[in-house]
Amino acid sequence: MDKKEISATFIALQNDVIAALEQADGKGVFQKDVWERPEGGGGITAIIQDGNILEKGGVNFSAVEGPMHENIGKMLGISASHFYATGVSIVIHPINPFVPIIHMNIRYFEVNTGEYWFGGGIDLTPHYIFPEQATYFHQQLKETCDKTDTAFYPKFKTWADNYFFIPHRNETRGIGGIFFDRLSHLSTPHSKQQLFEYVMNVGKTFAPTYTHLMKINAEIPFNENNKRWQLLRRGRYVEFNLVYDKGTRFGLETGGRIESILMSLPAQASWEYDVVPQKNSPEAITSELLVKGVNWLNLP
Amino acid sequence: MDKKEISATFIALQNDVIAALEQADGKGVFQKDVWERPEGGGGITAIIQDGNILEKGGVNFSAVEGPMHENIGKMLGISASHFYATGVSIVIHPINPFVPIIHMNIRYFEVNTGEYWFGGGIDLTPHYIFPEQATYFHQQLKETCDKTDTAFYPKFKTWADNYFFIPHRNETRGIGGIFFDRLSHLSTPHSKQQLFEYVMNVGKTFAPTYTHLMKINAEIPFNENNKRWQLLRRGRYVEFNLVYDKGTRFGLETGGRIESILMSLPAQASWEYDVVPQKNSPEAITSELLVKGVNWLNLP
Repeated sequence: MDKKEISATFIALQNDVIAALEQADGKGVFQKDVWERPEGGGGITAIIQDGNILEKGGVNFSAVEGPMHENIGKMLGISASHFYATGVSIVIHPINPFVPIIHMNIRYFEVNTGEYWFGGGIDLTPHYIFPEQATYFHQQLKETCDKTDTAFYPKFKTWADNYFFIPHRNETRGIGGIFFDRLSHLSTPHSKQQLFEYVMNVGKTFAPTYTHLMKINAEIPFNENNKRWQLLRRGRYVEFNLVYDKGTRFGLETGGRIESILMSLPAQASWEYDVVPQKNSPEAITSELLVKGVNWLNLP
Repeated sequence: MDKKEISATFIALQNDVIAALEQADGKGVFQKDVWERPEGGGGITAIIQDGNILEKGGVNFSAVEGPMHENIGKMLGISASHFYATGVSIVIHPINPFVPIIHMNIRYFEVNTGEYWFGGGIDLTPHYIFPEQATYFHQQLKETCDKTDTAFYPKFKTWADNYFFIPHRNETRGIGGIFFDRLSHLSTPHSKQQLFEYVMNVGKTFAPTYTHLMKINAEIPFNENNKRWQLLRRGRYVEFNLVYDKGTRFGLETGGRIESILMSLPAQASWEYDVVPQKNSPEAITSELLVKGVNWLNLP
């Protein structure tokens, strides 16, 4: 398959995800903005705001191309004069604090010297961690990975633990998931076609997994204290995205479409001074689980 | 004067500012946390939350010292084995959207090779710009600068315009103010004593200037739309601080006390997709003024 086929398949996935989320939400409708990039390519940004369950979220497609800047080539360790990058990127912030935040991204990159790779992942950021749901979530990812390669899940789970980490808080962003980059026939025992199928399987895992989590949590009653905690956890999400997330920082530094990049930020977030949850409270229990290396598939 | 005298004078300023802000607020009381830095030195973090006028703010003092990391020496272009850094840093977020956000910082740095410098500044971020208040604010800064050197205000005003700028939004953080760094007898025609007096004059300009702005704006009635705009402007403040502010990023990267560094973030902030203020609305007029190079002393 070539890049046009890949990006067309990504657009189809974007539409499938939008349809699934709108159906599960029951009220919110995605607003689509088609944009062009002056140097080449463009995208379709789809944003939902003020739904029944979803407060704010984006399901974005882009396919950009153009001359390869020297710095970027150096950063990536490749010498090429032209690049093509296409992907689907999702972040969803729900209203109810018991529904988790989710992020999904799949992407394909190629340059005119013939090099290419796939990247992406899915990770979950519950404001309150429910162990059995964390197990369910990781189980879905493991099943998806195992279809292609049983080595993928453990490797990409560890990668996510290390990537979705906030050093200045010494905590993970959430319960992780999978994260991978630079997958090609050179770095894995799989063909380009197999890797494309893998990445699409990851993309297709998103909607059923997240709409299930929406369904089972959206009706749980919550109080002001839960909402306050949600806003504080969203503050950490903002910290991660603005300080560490490579995609966000790359976008900001290279003049990407700002409203598409920052769709990942929540409708509201908050910061209070030196909040320490009460011992044994649900907030404290969640905080204690925000560490690397938890085996979510096999919790004690 | 030596470093001990400078830091003692900074602590006295911290206490004066706290007293002035508490008096002007009439309800909020600063909570003080004394902390130590494992490698040497420490600080006094003073935080106000849920006042009459002030929603959240910090007036922080620190005096840290220790071995100079090689990277930092390289970054600063100096070779020394030991450093000492002391300063006062203030950020205030008010409740009423018609009261501006303010930031002030003064600092002194020296290393064991004899090099030293002063740095700092004050800048204002009104959610709604009132031209006559912007003129008043800049007039105060000019008067303070002129006591030491009439070349300071124009130079440091331009420096602030360039520093407090959000490239990815192509807008300034607010109406700027003054920003300066690396002032010494080598970089200016003034003695160390004169520069210390200048920096202290900047510090002493803070309280009367800001309490005046609190007083004249805190009683202005505001509606939901004003509050919504305030939260969006605070979102930009978060973006600047987490993505660009050198002090913040330096603190995060060097393992500074996180709750003291991030006291600059507001109690609440928000992000909505692609907000474009209505033409000729107060929000649009403010947005149009968020550019570099405005002569606030002489508005048309």
